[in-house]
Amino acid sequence: MDEGQPVKYGYMVINEGKIEGIYEEEVKEEAGEVIDAKGKLIIPGFVNTHGHTGSTLLRGAGDDLPLNTWLKEVMWPMEQRFTKETTKAATSLAIGEMLKSGTTTFLDMYHLHMDQTAELILESGMNGVLCRGMIGLCSKEEQAEKLKESVELYKTWHNSGDGKIKVMLAPHAPYTCPPDFMEMIIEKAHEHGIALHTHLSETRKEVEEHIGTYGKHPAEHLSELGFFEGHALIAHGVHLSDVELSLLARKGTYISHNPKSNLKLGSGVADVKKMKEKNIRVCLGTDSSASNNTLDMFEEMRFASLIHKGVNEDPTAVSARDILFMAAQNGGKALQYEKKGRLKKGYDADFSIVEPGGMHTLPDPEERIVSHLVYAHKGSDVTDVFANGKQLVKNKELLTMDEEKIRFNAREALAKLRR
Amino acid sequence: MDEGQPVKYGYMVINEGKIEGIYEEEVKEEAGEVIDAKGKLIIPGFVNTHGHTGSTLLRGAGDDLPLNTWLKEVMWPMEQRFTKETTKAATSLAIGEMLKSGTTTFLDMYHLHMDQTAELILESGMNGVLCRGMIGLCSKEEQAEKLKESVELYKTWHNSGDGKIKVMLAPHAPYTCPPDFMEMIIEKAHEHGIALHTHLSETRKEVEEHIGTYGKHPAEHLSELGFFEGHALIAHGVHLSDVELSLLARKGTYISHNPKSNLKLGSGVADVKKMKEKNIRVCLGTDSSASNNTLDMFEEMRFASLIHKGVNEDPTAVSARDILFMAAQNGGKALQYEKKGRLKKGYDADFSIVEPGGMHTLPDPEERIVSHLVYAHKGSDVTDVFANGKQLVKNKELLTMDEEKIRFNAREALAKLRR
Ligand SMILES: [Zn+2]
Ligand SMILES: [Zn+2]
Repeated sequence: MDEGQPVKYGYMVINEGKIEGIYEEEVKEEAGEVIDAKGKLIIPGFVNTHGHTGSTLLRGAGDDLPLNTWLKEVMWPMEQRFTKETTKAATSLAIGEMLKSGTTTFLDMYHLHMDQTAELILESGMNGVLCRGMIGLCSKEEQAEKLKESVELYKTWHNSGDGKIKVMLAPHAPYTCPPDFMEMIIEKAHEHGIALHTHLSETRKEVEEHIGTYGKHPAEHLSELGFFEGHALIAHGVHLSDVELSLLARKGTYISHNPKSNLKLGSGVADVKKMKEKNIRVCLGTDSSASNNTLDMFEEMRFASLIHKGVNEDPTAVSARDILFMAAQNGGKALQYEKKGRLKKGYDADFSIVEPGGMHTLPDPEERIVSHLVYAHKGSDVTDVFANGKQLVKNKELLTMDEEKIRFNAREALAKLRR
Repeated sequence: MDEGQPVKYGYMVINEGKIEGIYEEEVKEEAGEVIDAKGKLIIPGFVNTHGHTGSTLLRGAGDDLPLNTWLKEVMWPMEQRFTKETTKAATSLAIGEMLKSGTTTFLDMYHLHMDQTAELILESGMNGVLCRGMIGLCSKEEQAEKLKESVELYKTWHNSGDGKIKVMLAPHAPYTCPPDFMEMIIEKAHEHGIALHTHLSETRKEVEEHIGTYGKHPAEHLSELGFFEGHALIAHGVHLSDVELSLLARKGTYISHNPKSNLKLGSGVADVKKMKEKNIRVCLGTDSSASNNTLDMFEEMRFASLIHKGVNEDPTAVSARDILFMAAQNGGKALQYEKKGRLKKGYDADFSIVEPGGMHTLPDPEERIVSHLVYAHKGSDVTDVFANGKQLVKNKELLTMDEEKIRFNAREALAKLRR
């Protein structure tokens, strides 16, 4: 079988949560359960490498405002009132949306109730990376407390749930974490072998201010502090200099490209064409539904594929295959899962079944299937989703979560916040 | 009732294909049929102001190639083999896709079998503008023949089907129509009072070549030839100078903004922020599914809303309301329909019912509904569609067309082309 080529007719055998094999001939062995996906597409589960599920209830709150007004007058006042119940409603809704559109693994950077998030991930059957986001604009004691909490989270949850859950250390950003705090975090990460995740160079303003304050670009600064010495994933990277991009290429750092959020907040367009030329490891993320406003990797793929062609005036800037690779395989690696994002023997059985033959995906000769996945299919074409061999969505219905309850709780939690 | 504000609870009375009134209190009069859309959203039918339905079977053919290779090696050789049956399959598929995602009116620029397209539009119950696209790179006789055919089309079909069908004269583009041919077309348009439609300044290359050949920018040149003196709609306008934009503003010309196609083909990003500042009449179009690859106005709205915020690094560049206005009301005006694109007394009863409460559109307090329509809803949330008071889609199923047949014919017609 050709590596990376779609298999037209085939049999995929799942055992103990893993893909035991993919065969072109019928498998004669006895199976516990047989799923007939004849005429449908089976694709790897998507890996959403950056987001904040706790913000999901703010979807559509104060759109179209300048960034500062939006943060100060809409986001922060609401977030200050968040309870454990609010974040539960928010994260459940996010998980429901991601699952139904074919995402089986996600990274969650948030500062509240991350133990609850871990439990929700396990209940849902998804895979998730917990990042207790640390903002360092506070006293030394509070900084130390946040870091301690993050390391505790790692000790409690990392690789739990048979490896479904992972934990990274997550300073929020260079503009919210002074260098000495950043250094403390990096030291702790290296001491325990914990991977690092942060927002980096999202807006022009933050980069200019960083240069003004420290006389160097943020990524160069982080590099001096050792940030990129272990496994590191940065989100955005919209305003990285050529020198910084080369640095990240050399270090093997992963960049979570979040095109929709970057556009919506007016941050700009990351130079993914150049990242690709420099062989930087790019993966995709949605950021939160407060700035996106969906958590649908089909939409993220669509934007990532089209925008770089347009902005570079070059239809070859990225290909459908590049984008699928970012959305699944590279995402899995970025989040330190060894065997995710591919349909291949020995890989985790994380996959979706996608319905072809919609008015929007016809005609569909074999060689256009990859194109259709990136340029034409919608999240709503996903009918069934499996993670680690377990079915989580069946006929567009969540199996491990109560959709009616999620719907009710989301509306109710927001109503309570506004009372 | 506030103009332009959503009505929370209401009753819309339809009579003879028109909206007789919208009331907040229950209507006591006897009704022939009552549609209960409680808890759902009713929105105006979208107006897709630029496309080529005849190309629909080329969806996903040769993506990610340089423009010239794509045109010369993929598109043109295929198009040369198109029969009447091919274009029927293609246009039917396009109509099916547009209807199911809430579009009730579209413009179709194509060079083959436009009478058949008119019949398909009437069968489907949609509204459509026929543009026999004229490429002038041929003999004077052939030019005259194409123009004659276009005027015939106008005489036969304009305002037929109780005004559902309109016809415009459509020189393909300044780079495919020499100035003397362009002038002939414009003269004919003014003689009969026919509106004009053309591709304009889509790529940097065509603009530079035009300046090289004629010593002036394409829109200035068209203006000298009188193109903008009557009702005119241009597609794309990606590379218009400031002077040209001011000219189009002054002339009241409509611009069909096709963000996804412009991105995918590597043409660039039209300056919609500036167009808005100059009060230019912007509407939205998908272009064909060979360069998009969908005909879904929700996707077009999403791209139009996000890309200008990002490229301008300004989240206030366009608002959700601006985009809805472009997608419906301004589209209706651009296509010369007097009463389309709004839910208002006296307007045509062209509307869709949209299902709220999906995992991707929650929470949904009243004031976020417009935001959700632009930033979160998908075409697949449309459950029912009406045009001129007649139901065309019910529970996501086409009523006036046979979806199974469209599906079969699309696959079969492509297979025949490739035999
Ligand atoms: Zn973020
Ligand atoms: Zn076109």
